[in-house]
Amino acid sequence: MTDPNADSDGDANADELGEATVAGDDLDAVLAAVRERVTPDAAERERLEAAAADLAERVRAAVTDLPSPADDADVLTVGSTARGTWLAGDRDIDLFVRFPTDLSREELEQLGLRVGHAVLPDGEEEYAEHPYVVGTADGFDVDLVPCYDVDAATEIRSAVDRTPFHNEYLLDRLTDDLAGDVRVLKSFLKGIGVYGSNLRTRGFSGYLTELLVAEHGGARETLEAVADWHPPVRIDPEDHGTAEFDDPLVVVDPTDPERNVAAVLSGDNLARFQHHARDLLADPRTDPFFPAEPRPLDAAGVREHVRRRVTAPVAVAFDAPDLVDDQLYPQLRRSLAGVERELDGMGFDAIRAATFAAERGDDGGDRRAVLLVELAARRLPAVERHEGPPVHVRDHAAGFYDKYADDPNAYGPFVADGRYVVERERDPDERDGVAVLESERIFDAALGARVESALECGYDVLAGEELATLADEFGVDLREYFEPTV
Amino acid sequence: MTDPNADSDGDANADELGEATVAGDDLDAVLAAVRERVTPDAAERERLEAAAADLAERVRAAVTDLPSPADDADVLTVGSTARGTWLAGDRDIDLFVRFPTDLSREELEQLGLRVGHAVLPDGEEEYAEHPYVVGTADGFDVDLVPCYDVDAATEIRSAVDRTPFHNEYLLDRLTDDLAGDVRVLKSFLKGIGVYGSNLRTRGFSGYLTELLVAEHGGARETLEAVADWHPPVRIDPEDHGTAEFDDPLVVVDPTDPERNVAAVLSGDNLARFQHHARDLLADPRTDPFFPAEPRPLDAAGVREHVRRRVTAPVAVAFDAPDLVDDQLYPQLRRSLAGVERELDGMGFDAIRAATFAAERGDDGGDRRAVLLVELAARRLPAVERHEGPPVHVRDHAAGFYDKYADDPNAYGPFVADGRYVVERERDPDERDGVAVLESERIFDAALGARVESALECGYDVLAGEELATLADEFGVDLREYFEPTV
Repeated sequence: MTDPNADSDGDANADELGEATVAGDDLDAVLAAVRERVTPDAAERERLEAAAADLAERVRAAVTDLPSPADDADVLTVGSTARGTWLAGDRDIDLFVRFPTDLSREELEQLGLRVGHAVLPDGEEEYAEHPYVVGTADGFDVDLVPCYDVDAATEIRSAVDRTPFHNEYLLDRLTDDLAGDVRVLKSFLKGIGVYGSNLRTRGFSGYLTELLVAEHGGARETLEAVADWHPPVRIDPEDHGTAEFDDPLVVVDPTDPERNVAAVLSGDNLARFQHHARDLLADPRTDPFFPAEPRPLDAAGVREHVRRRVTAPVAVAFDAPDLVDDQLYPQLRRSLAGVERELDGMGFDAIRAATFAAERGDDGGDRRAVLLVELAARRLPAVERHEGPPVHVRDHAAGFYDKYADDPNAYGPFVADGRYVVERERDPDERDGVAVLESERIFDAALGARVESALECGYDVLAGEELATLADEFGVDLREYFEPTV
Repeated sequence: MTDPNADSDGDANADELGEATVAGDDLDAVLAAVRERVTPDAAERERLEAAAADLAERVRAAVTDLPSPADDADVLTVGSTARGTWLAGDRDIDLFVRFPTDLSREELEQLGLRVGHAVLPDGEEEYAEHPYVVGTADGFDVDLVPCYDVDAATEIRSAVDRTPFHNEYLLDRLTDDLAGDVRVLKSFLKGIGVYGSNLRTRGFSGYLTELLVAEHGGARETLEAVADWHPPVRIDPEDHGTAEFDDPLVVVDPTDPERNVAAVLSGDNLARFQHHARDLLADPRTDPFFPAEPRPLDAAGVREHVRRRVTAPVAVAFDAPDLVDDQLYPQLRRSLAGVERELDGMGFDAIRAATFAAERGDDGGDRRAVLLVELAARRLPAVERHEGPPVHVRDHAAGFYDKYADDPNAYGPFVADGRYVVERERDPDERDGVAVLESERIFDAALGARVESALECGYDVLAGEELATLADEFGVDLREYFEPTV
């Protein structure tokens, strides 16, 4: 049951979590050490800048071959590479091609892909809001994304059109020193597992991290502010926010008063950030920034936890629908909630639940996914108490009595607390959590549409120690489930 | 599971329970037949009146031997014999000796007993509010009770002083015809199991039955009124009630404006009366008046029900404390409620519960009693979810985190819905309903004082099919429990 970190300083010093002040120099020393480690050296910097410049040049060349007016599209490097906030070792370059707005969407997509393939001959097409080409060049992973050259972020035609404005905004504000602090904070968020605005992680995006550092004037200042936050927290750097949001953290986009940059951040990840920020302030050290690789839990470990908890975990394992994570995880979460609600409605008591999916293979498709619900007990009694109306409500009560008086499968009617009461026989399919999931009943649950069709193609139900068979594929997820930490 | 009456007309016609009107002559014919059967014939009447007169004479003689002023105590027959409302075959005679109020309580008790033993040489002493003598004479069971000769029921010194006033009030009102209807209604209440104001039954007393018939003008009229009652119901024959009661049925004592004659009647027994009154009106027949002896459930029957219900009944069987039923049953009910609350607090889910006691032997003491709680499941998981404060409530949250961070027996702390959450290890003694009852934990429950001391002398815990061993002693109770009816 022990937290894998239990023997780290983290918990040994947890009793200081409540304190606000720490020996400044300890923390400064730690942050400096981290900064040193995550800041790319001159050589790396040059390599990347050279590669980016070279790519931009090739894109410009490709653009000139395009029919007018597309041929005066401009090219810019965006993202952490452009802003000098990438973490040492990252090898991503994001290039945007900004086309005139008088192109149709079809033209934009078609010409964008043409440029992409010209510049990245080995590139493949991916699809966000519209298709774009990803490939490699000089050993870097390159995204080449077409967008519209709009006058303001408020006039965007698709989400990617906003990126150049973010770039511009931050380039004006992120000094080299602040850029270094952004790297420090990014690596902290990565270390504690809440970095990334994809819908699997629901954490902090790079842009959000940069805005927080710019807003608070540094990594340390951000950590100290976060430790004391009382969500919902609203930050509006340009003080121009127009919309209301009910997200736990609202950071109004400086380039768009109607957008919350932290919209995908989950409340739990915000809470985790607060916890770990306090922990670091109370006990400054570098290991939260660079955690060890999570150790998968093996089959024996799973069996031991199941035996020790004396619960009845039931899992549905199936071939995940062929979706990118950003589409798959919301479907899995919705489906898990639906299954939990369904079981709860039948009288089962769920202690905890989780959903896992394997990494997506390059070929897409063919990865397994799991819906896990841990029940307090696998089986329910064969009888279920059902209370009728008070006996004195004559007609209504008589109707209830008549309904059950001759039912050979009901105990009663009898009188309790002035009401008619019967104990009905529970549907045999609804007495056993495993039987429920193995039967058609599972489709009564509100499942994500693609998960529902995936289950229609078949699935396995695992109960109790049978979960151990998931250890090969989901050992790390099972470690997180059975040895949960903040 | 079928109701033992399921094949009787009762349920066959239950679909008419809602109807208010029935073929009058059917019901009248049924009531007349019952009346015929429960009205003692002339011979029985003469025998009883002769015996009562003779006893009264002997009491008067005994009284004259008493020291003044006790020697002008007067004697009167009370109860159903005096009012001609006893059921054919009943063999009870109640005699009251009314002493002057200037006697002290001690003198009253001592002289009352002296008269009692003089008249009933084989008599034994019993104790209600004060001691009195019960014995037999001419084959009748005789109660000889001393009381004070007060001027009004409102001036009574003990409950029994009220009886003569009840007697007087009813003698003025119960014509022979109404007395016959009282017999009919009494036998109906007996038949459906709600007759008797003792604290085991918590039903209708004879006096209450007589008042209801007098108030409504007959048995049929009473049944029709009861069928439509919407408790709480208040009846005040003398329209002189002063006090408020929160009993489901309030019948203000015509001889005492501050007393509810129906105070001990339970709401469930009132509901049962309503149910059976409607049933009789819908389907007039004599068998509810003269039900068959209840058939005890045998060991095999108990085992079959336990297997069929797939529940986890647990029973505590012990030597009942040496108390009369009026003291024992309230203690048993309080203790059962305490045990249920205790188990519920630990997370167990009780489907139903009941308490039984064997008949009391003449020697008093040495009868078994049972506290039965039917659990949905005998065992609980080893872990128990425990939610802490929201993470953002910094100091409070830190205190919670620190408390569990290093606890090797807790899963977590982790974050859920913005809060710290742990899964604590459940006390091994609190995971198994049988272990709870076998351990000292049972004494944490709010038990009746005498039941608690009885359990301290030892008890057996029976689980599941082991309940079958109770069938020999409690077969009828177990039939009622496992085949419950209204």
